[in-house]
Formats: sequence, structure tokens, C-alpha cells
Amino acid sequence: MASHKTQEPVITSVTDLPTSEAKWVTLKKVSYLDQTGKARTWEVASRKTRAASAGVDAVAMGNILLHPARPPATVVVIQYRPPLDAYTVEWPAGLIDEGETAEQAAVREFKEETGYACEVVSVSPVQAADPGLSSANMQLVMVEVKLGEDEELPAQRLDDGEHIQRVVVPLAELYERLVEWSNQERMIVAAKLFHFAAGMEFARTKGKEYGL
Amino acid sequence: MASHKTQEPVITSVTDLPTSEAKWVTLKKVSYLDQTGKARTWEVASRKTRAASAGVDAVAMGNILLHPARPPATVVVIQYRPPLDAYTVEWPAGLIDEGETAEQAAVREFKEETGYACEVVSVSPVQAADPGLSSANMQLVMVEVKLGEDEELPAQRLDDGEHIQRVVVPLAELYERLVEWSNQERMIVAAKLFHFAAGMEFARTKGKEYGL
Repeated sequence: MASHKTQEPVITSVTDLPTSEAKWVTLKKVSYLDQTGKARTWEVASRKTRAASAGVDAVAMGNILLHPARPPATVVVIQYRPPLDAYTVEWPAGLIDEGETAEQAAVREFKEETGYACEVVSVSPVQAADPGLSSANMQLVMVEVKLGEDEELPAQRLDDGEHIQRVVVPLAELYERLVEWSNQERMIVAAKLFHFAAGMEFARTKGKEYGL
Repeated sequence: MASHKTQEPVITSVTDLPTSEAKWVTLKKVSYLDQTGKARTWEVASRKTRAASAGVDAVAMGNILLHPARPPATVVVIQYRPPLDAYTVEWPAGLIDEGETAEQAAVREFKEETGYACEVVSVSPVQAADPGLSSANMQLVMVEVKLGEDEELPAQRLDDGEHIQRVVVPLAELYERLVEWSNQERMIVAAKLFHFAAGMEFARTKGKEYGL
């Protein structure tokens, strides 16, 4: 996908990972008393990286690029994700470092992944990433980038091992583009981005009928 | 929260769960060659329950309740989720059983959790639930329920151990209600539902400005 790519990523092995050897993720058994007082258990996957300061794992950046002459757009990132053995389409996102606020993590990660300096417009409440499976949580940070008349895509500042392709999509075409990508071989859209776009599309197409 | 609840759920212990003992979730180490040919590894949490027939873990039901006299609404479910030790606000959702299609799972789970018979309006492409952490995937199934003039909430058909409160929210108030819930003690909104509502709200409030 990305211009610096020289080959398609390929999985060479998948093995059971003992919990005691895992560095990033862990499995926990939660024992609890339910609403009726009955003892039950639940198996939970957790990140081991949550910074105590923020108490939140990650931020995703819902971003709007404003250009003097072009329609409002958003930048999505496409990258190979080993958990799915596929290229995912997502909004830029990243883990919150120790001592950072959600806003600070958003500005830093957005710069790293897209090269753009952004302004934070709003920060959502904490949301549960996948509540039946994991304790992972995140905040959606809406950001804006004001572009100049002749602005080119700036250079990214990626960590070693990050191969991330940026694609700028007009907001009005976002939903349609996500569906098109979903239909391509070895590509999958992240649920959070898809749901935001589906909500926009719902309001656009059904808003009048449903009194929105 | 729910009327049949007799006490607040309480966690009695959280212990490391060896991968070899987990029944529902597992940890895998994926070894792969990246775009430059370099050998890398990734730690992945996976569900052990994915039905081979569908190849997809779960469905969530984006639902619209249509009543002759009331504004279009949606039903959300609130339940205690041990991974977060909190009550989550979500759209009804569930795992796809072996031999089921996404549509069939949606109709079955929606009936179980809400009591309503629904009609499937659309089925989304497969989405990655939390692509940096897990292989979990899902489809958003939009469904409609046509209510009669005097219709009451029907009885749920819950599995043993499920304590699920249903709340009907007018679509036009959904975003605001999710934010209010997020601000309450021990409550968290699931990211997929929050993102859909945020996308609707974005289109409603910024649509004109951004040419949507």
C-alpha cells in the first residue's frame, strides 16, 4: 500500500502465547458476584500499557482538514495489522503515554502519523473499546487542521517499524469510500471509524424522514 | 439499574488467567515479515468462539423503533460488564452461532435482548472491533421495528445470568443522552455506539458548514 513498501507482509507463525510471557496484552479472570448475589467469572483481555496518570488506554483523532478551496476532508491511515492479517482503515490513533493528557497524546500522535499540526476541538467521554472482550478504553478527540492554499502533505514522523499510508478523503464521500475499501481484498475498516461514518450517512440520508 | 436487580455487582478477585486455561479468549503471538522483509512479532487477543460458517465474531444491531405517534427512537441496553467493572450502554449485540448468517444472528439476538421482532434493513461490511489489540470482528446490522399505537415494551428472553436493562431513546436525543450517561458514576458507553451517535450529531450540527 505505502510507497516505501517493498513486499506484502506475511505471517510466518501463530503460536499460543502464555500469559506470563506477554508484554503488551494480558488475560485476566475476573470473579464477581452478579446482581442476584451469584458468583460468576469472566475472561478479560487487557492492555498492560495503560498509563496510571490518564487511566485511559488510547485516543483516536476524528480530524477535519479545512482548505480554502477544497471541500472539508479527513485523513485516514491505512496500515498492516497483524491481529487481522489485513490492512486496516482507521482514524489516526495511539496509546496515551504516562503523564500525558488525552489532548496532548492526540496532538503528538496526530503529528507522528500524519505530519500535521492540529488544534483540538473537543474531547469525548471515555468509551469502552470492546466491552464484552476487553477492558480497553479510549477517547475520541476531534481535531481540526487549517491548510494553506498550496499545502502539500507534510512529512510523517513515524516510529521504527511503522508503515502507515495516509489518505485524504472528502467528508461527503467518507462513508462510500469506507464501503469500497471494505470490498477490497485483505482490507478492513475499523469499527469506530465505520460507525462514525455510518452515523453521518444516516443523518444525511434519513435525517429529514426521522426528524433529526 | 435493572428492576430485577437486588444488589450492585462486585468483583471479588482478579487473577492472571493462563492461556491454556482460558475458554473464551486466547492470546496468540503472531510472527510476521513486515513490508521491508524484517521479522517482527505482535501480541493478539482472540475470541475462541468464532463460528467457521460466518467467519465473523459478532453482530451489533443499530435499531430504529417507528411508532405512529412518537418520534423515531432506538433501544439501547445497559448491563454490568465485568471487563470494565461498570455498566455499559450499547446497542444490542451478540455472537454469531455456528451455521447462522449475520442477519439471522441479528434477528435472534435482538429478540432475546429486547423482546422485539425486527426487520433487517442493511448489513454492513465486516469491521475490525479493536484492530491494534485483537482479531475480533463484527458487522453492524441496521434493523427496524414497527410499533403499534399502544405497544408496551415486550418481555425479554434472556439467557441465564443476563441482566439487561432496555432504554428507549429518541434518535434526536441519542448523542446528548450518551454524554449524560458517560458522566454518571460507574457507567461507560461502548465506542461503536458512541461513534455512530457522534457521527449523527456531527452531520446535524456541522453538516451545513461542511457541505454534507
